[in-house]
Amino acid sequence: MSAAEKWVYDNSRPTALTVPGRVFRAVHHLVLVSGVGAMVLATHEPVAAAHATLLALAFNVALGFFAVEYVVRLYAAAASLSAEPTHPWTARWEWATSLNGLIDLAAVLPFVLAGLLAWNPATINLFAIVWVLKLFRYSPGSGMLQRVLRDARESLFSVFVAFIVVLLVAATLMHVFEGPGQPKLYGSIPAALWWGITTLTTTGYGDVVPVSPLGRLVAGMVMICGIAVFALWAGILANAFANEVRRREFLRNWDLITKVPFFRDLGAATIADIAQILKPQAVEKGRTIIRRGDPGDCMFFIVSGEVEVRLAPEPRRLGPGGFFGEIALITGEPRSATAVAAKETQLLVLDIADFRQLTARRPELANVVTEEGLRRMERVRQSRGGGQ
Amino acid sequence: MSAAEKWVYDNSRPTALTVPGRVFRAVHHLVLVSGVGAMVLATHEPVAAAHATLLALAFNVALGFFAVEYVVRLYAAAASLSAEPTHPWTARWEWATSLNGLIDLAAVLPFVLAGLLAWNPATINLFAIVWVLKLFRYSPGSGMLQRVLRDARESLFSVFVAFIVVLLVAATLMHVFEGPGQPKLYGSIPAALWWGITTLTTTGYGDVVPVSPLGRLVAGMVMICGIAVFALWAGILANAFANEVRRREFLRNWDLITKVPFFRDLGAATIADIAQILKPQAVEKGRTIIRRGDPGDCMFFIVSGEVEVRLAPEPRRLGPGGFFGEIALITGEPRSATAVAAKETQLLVLDIADFRQLTARRPELANVVTEEGLRRMERVRQSRGGGQ
Amino acid sequence: MSAAEKWVYDNSRPTALTVPGRVFRAVHHLVLVSGVGAMVLATHEPVAAAHATLLALAFNVALGFFAVEYVVRLYAAAASLSAEPTHPWTARWEWATSLNGLIDLAAVLPFVLAGLLAWNPATINLFAIVWVLKLFRYSPGSGMLQRVLRDARESLFSVFVAFIVVLLVAATLMHVFEGPGQPKLYGSIPAALWWGITTLTTTGYGDVVPVSPLGRLVAGMVMICGIAVFALWAGILANAFANEVRRREFLRNWDLITKVPFFRDLGAATIADIAQILKPQAVEKGRTIIRRGDPGDCMFFIVSGEVEVRLAPEPRRLGPGGFFGEIALITGEPRSATAVAAKETQLLVLDIADFRQLTARRPELANVVTEEGLRRMERVRQSRGGGQ
Amino acid sequence: MSAAEKWVYDNSRPTALTVPGRVFRAVHHLVLVSGVGAMVLATHEPVAAAHATLLALAFNVALGFFAVEYVVRLYAAAASLSAEPTHPWTARWEWATSLNGLIDLAAVLPFVLAGLLAWNPATINLFAIVWVLKLFRYSPGSGMLQRVLRDARESLFSVFVAFIVVLLVAATLMHVFEGPGQPKLYGSIPAALWWGITTLTTTGYGDVVPVSPLGRLVAGMVMICGIAVFALWAGILANAFANEVRRREFLRNWDLITKVPFFRDLGAATIADIAQILKPQAVEKGRTIIRRGDPGDCMFFIVSGEVEVRLAPEPRRLGPGGFFGEIALITGEPRSATAVAAKETQLLVLDIADFRQLTARRPELANVVTEEGLRRMERVRQSRGGGQ
Repeated sequence: MSAAEKWVYDNSRPTALTVPGRVFRAVHHLVLVSGVGAMVLATHEPVAAAHATLLALAFNVALGFFAVEYVVRLYAAAASLSAEPTHPWTARWEWATSLNGLIDLAAVLPFVLAGLLAWNPATINLFAIVWVLKLFRYSPGSGMLQRVLRDARESLFSVFVAFIVVLLVAATLMHVFEGPGQPKLYGSIPAALWWGITTLTTTGYGDVVPVSPLGRLVAGMVMICGIAVFALWAGILANAFANEVRRREFLRNWDLITKVPFFRDLGAATIADIAQILKPQAVEKGRTIIRRGDPGDCMFFIVSGEVEVRLAPEPRRLGPGGFFGEIALITGEPRSATAVAAKETQLLVLDIADFRQLTARRPELANVVTEEGLRRMERVRQSRGGGQ
Repeated sequence: MSAAEKWVYDNSRPTALTVPGRVFRAVHHLVLVSGVGAMVLATHEPVAAAHATLLALAFNVALGFFAVEYVVRLYAAAASLSAEPTHPWTARWEWATSLNGLIDLAAVLPFVLAGLLAWNPATINLFAIVWVLKLFRYSPGSGMLQRVLRDARESLFSVFVAFIVVLLVAATLMHVFEGPGQPKLYGSIPAALWWGITTLTTTGYGDVVPVSPLGRLVAGMVMICGIAVFALWAGILANAFANEVRRREFLRNWDLITKVPFFRDLGAATIADIAQILKPQAVEKGRTIIRRGDPGDCMFFIVSGEVEVRLAPEPRRLGPGGFFGEIALITGEPRSATAVAAKETQLLVLDIADFRQLTARRPELANVVTEEGLRRMERVRQSRGGGQ
Repeated sequence: MSAAEKWVYDNSRPTALTVPGRVFRAVHHLVLVSGVGAMVLATHEPVAAAHATLLALAFNVALGFFAVEYVVRLYAAAASLSAEPTHPWTARWEWATSLNGLIDLAAVLPFVLAGLLAWNPATINLFAIVWVLKLFRYSPGSGMLQRVLRDARESLFSVFVAFIVVLLVAATLMHVFEGPGQPKLYGSIPAALWWGITTLTTTGYGDVVPVSPLGRLVAGMVMICGIAVFALWAGILANAFANEVRRREFLRNWDLITKVPFFRDLGAATIADIAQILKPQAVEKGRTIIRRGDPGDCMFFIVSGEVEVRLAPEPRRLGPGGFFGEIALITGEPRSATAVAAKETQLLVLDIADFRQLTARRPELANVVTEEGLRRMERVRQSRGGGQ
Repeated sequence: MSAAEKWVYDNSRPTALTVPGRVFRAVHHLVLVSGVGAMVLATHEPVAAAHATLLALAFNVALGFFAVEYVVRLYAAAASLSAEPTHPWTARWEWATSLNGLIDLAAVLPFVLAGLLAWNPATINLFAIVWVLKLFRYSPGSGMLQRVLRDARESLFSVFVAFIVVLLVAATLMHVFEGPGQPKLYGSIPAALWWGITTLTTTGYGDVVPVSPLGRLVAGMVMICGIAVFALWAGILANAFANEVRRREFLRNWDLITKVPFFRDLGAATIADIAQILKPQAVEKGRTIIRRGDPGDCMFFIVSGEVEVRLAPEPRRLGPGGFFGEIALITGEPRSATAVAAKETQLLVLDIADFRQLTARRPELANVVTEEGLRRMERVRQSRGGGQ
């Protein structure tokens, strides 16, 4: 793989934190929104007539952008992570047949075909709706959503089967009960199915409504089944989400924790314990993390970067592995000093509730933090005594 | 900061328990409800005509009240919690630019501007709807709600992106399938979007309804997606709520527990354990806490205040750190004595289920409580024997 | 208190398991359903005309029954659980002013007043709807529901405040945006509130629908808020329910377990552990509990009653404290014998999943059960060997 | 029981993994879908007229298939699992009176009766809707759904009672408030009940809408109760689902784990611990399980079958009890080798998050896995050194 391929590949990843990566994403999203917006507005007669040129411009810019993007991504796919030496075109083919590759292709292909085959442009423009699918690549939790749906697919599917069975049985019953009275609306089962789905999902348009007592009884039961379907799906997903959130946070924290020397010395059991409760927080350079006098409800561990703690005689700098903010948790008083990020800094936040539980469970960790906290308080007190 | 500033600041906090604080809150809420009510009713012709003077009075009283409140709060903001000596106007500016300060300003400013610029009063009065936002400051769980939404924002946002994508795709499809048949309702994608949102949220007004088979198929799938969105959000929030509730109760209890001498002597591990299960309960002076003969399903620890236990020979008084109600849990019989709050009292309640689990897990705690319970039972038995 | 009072009191409790108690409940429910049914049907002209006498009879029988019930319950209230000697009329007054007493009074009083004051009987009969409230006394989980709502009331109320705020703001905005176009439907804020509540709850009757673009935008956002309200309430209640269910089952099991000699000898920690996983099951006399050859997915402990295990040479009887069904869990094979309840029997069921986890956690318990299981298997094998 | 009975019985079970079992299921589902589809389409005039013969064919094939299926299943029921020697017809009678047996009978009987009694065929064909109930036997999670509903039935029923009470009270109030103004829609309580159920379930057809201020107030409260019912059911079911999913996975894993020699040597406590976190995965022969260079987020244990790990000098084969994929978890680097299923293989997957927590909690297990991992890495390094 060439350096250019690698550079493009790294900067075009959805989570790239580099400047070119961020610029690319901003432009991409802007182009996407304006392109889809232009397509949507072009179907609205008054706007389309008044701003035809502008809409066409936005649309064609987006189309061109996505066409170039496809070619570039295909080219850079040769640099995709792979320890085995494969032919660049093998890697490119793999990307082209992946879900993301197919979406990117579908965002461009219809327009190419339309140009070649001279299709009706008004109709073909509607294919631009495919562009919104490109957003999924950038949605932070969409991977999580997929895992949740996959883990719970069996239960969700069972409820869906029950949904279909209720739908079919209800439509048949309504065909029998309401068909004679309203032959146009319930005269066939496919017609009654339309009533069924609007009722079972509790949408209730009101274009098809039962009028016979038996029909209304069935309708009432179908509505209650609708509530049950909602409730079952919500119950299933609530459970699956809880598990997935826990897993995700644990892994993210584990990666961060093992970078901090302070934690690496603790045993695996303690690290596994801590990784379940810390919350990561990224801070830009110059941002105030805690301010003197504020109430203190958490302490911080530094993963990377540098933090300046503004103490009385002279500020102190803490680097990776350092921690601060523990004094307020020990004394229960407001923050005794202001802390500012001296560089772009990655922190791990320990909430006060978790601090209390953790120190109860892991006395060895509590000792380290508390002793350092007491030492610092002592130093502050001395310097203040000396400064007055 | 002056004493006056401090007094006003302390009494105007939403959680102030002082008499002036309570009176202020009552008046504030009354004025708010009557002011908003007057504005709402003034838009209803018959009422507005019949009670014009009364409505104007209620409205203007509220407006005046909020104007004065704004000035007073701005003045008192100088006393806001801060250990660092800052200029009073720095603190005031901070409050004025905080969310609460801006809401309080928005509650008054439009009317001042309207007076200066001679705007139409009927229209300008509608701005009074901003007043209801002042309620959030007093809503007990709104801080919790904010934390929950913040913790789960990534997942919630992912579902929202999926919501928007489904909405756009569905509207485009309906524009294609239903547009030719119902050009007025589905003739443009923006028009079809209105159908989409009423369907995807399962609201189903019924003003725009598909009639073609393909359109109905898409509609059915959109409704099912609507259920899924409900269910996903419910699942995400259920999980985030469980975590936040646990955190909040733990912190509240920890603060209370560490005030009780009885608990302070226990190790940190036991306190952290107990703090997860006790429930706080505030009792007014003179209120009966337990009544002799009632079934007993909990015991009590006293944080502050005083409780009179009405035993046979003479009542006994228990102060902070004392506990009562344990006998019924040990014997399983009804309450053997009545207990009344002799002062305003703060209690911690230990439910019978938690009592059983806790004593199993923490024998040292169980011993203290059980021995005291047995001693008391013995004493009651003796005094009864002697009294007969 | 007299013996008659006590007898009536005990048999009229909603959970009485005696024969008179069961008969009373059956009659009560029958009378209630037929009385309410008669009232409901009497408002439907055709039925009322055709069966006037029958409906009047059912209605009046119910009214008479509830009048007698009120007097009897008042009389028997003197026997309500109380260790302190109080005057019978004090206890009766307490019952009369309790929620149940007031509902029972409200079920009768309107009709007495109507008779005295010669009110219009057709209207007064509608008061019979109060009778359905009597059902709450018998609803098994209604106490639980109350605890859940009480525990979560703060969070639920916060969401409700947000609901009201969104409702008021949305109605004001719609009054501004839609009022000029649809003065009849959105001409005043109270009128717009009707639209607001049907939309925010996603009911969507469709009698009031926005038509302006801005109005539809607001409507779309209101619908999404409606989903969020659903989701927040569901999330809050899911959490509160989980806690309450755990508490209830623990207490129910603790009461049963401590009656079993086998468990009483175990330490408190083991009992507290077991009480979280056993499930109670009441079996009528003569009912088969397990059948030879069925797959075995649980074992049983006997709390009270007697069970006959039909072994090959001669059946064996097990009394309180005995256990059976453990062999299938140990061997993984189908049930080796049939077990039938020889008397009305109360069992505690240990699911196979919990059996595996419990025996891993509590080896001392596992040993007792496993050794007895092996001994029994040996005995069965010998007897079979001898029988051939 | 005969061998033929046994063969039919084993292959007709819904979970049979044999080839005849799979073929039978595929044919069964195809026949079912085409039969029900034919019945549904036959009620739609245009299709029925155009394809009468085809529809009749599909319908009658399905009917014949189910008739034969009933007879065969009845015959094979003699082989149902039972250790006790019973008469074949006793077992057959048991099956015929079970739920599945009754559904299978109801799928055929109406048509037999219709033939004998010369009923109207158009009407009788609608009974084919019973056929969809046969799907429940094959729905993987339907047993789980049943357990969940059974476990939570008490709470669900309480909410349902509250639902009915609100419905009745609301209908009576609306009859009073709206009856005079809209006598046709609210003139009787049964009529008002129809409004009630469409509103309480938030379906909101809009065919019956309150117009009086009091009526709308009641309607608003009913809608809010509707949300609460949704939320309560969702909360109850979320909780019950979480418990049931945990139970099911534990049992499934326990069965698999105890087949693996590697795990059998660990203590019961470790097995119970592991059984809660492993996820089973079945892999077809020849399928790639992990690919060299992919990021590694889990390791695998082999329950049955064989896996080929493609290492540099020569591939190695791992059989039941072996594990692989642990190196990437230890080093945090991409997969160092590709692994392919050499036979149909049953795996247990250990997620990286669980791996970290498990190794912290169970050092003895961690040691075994880590030592083997290090040994393998050493070997790979040597072979690579030698190969170059």
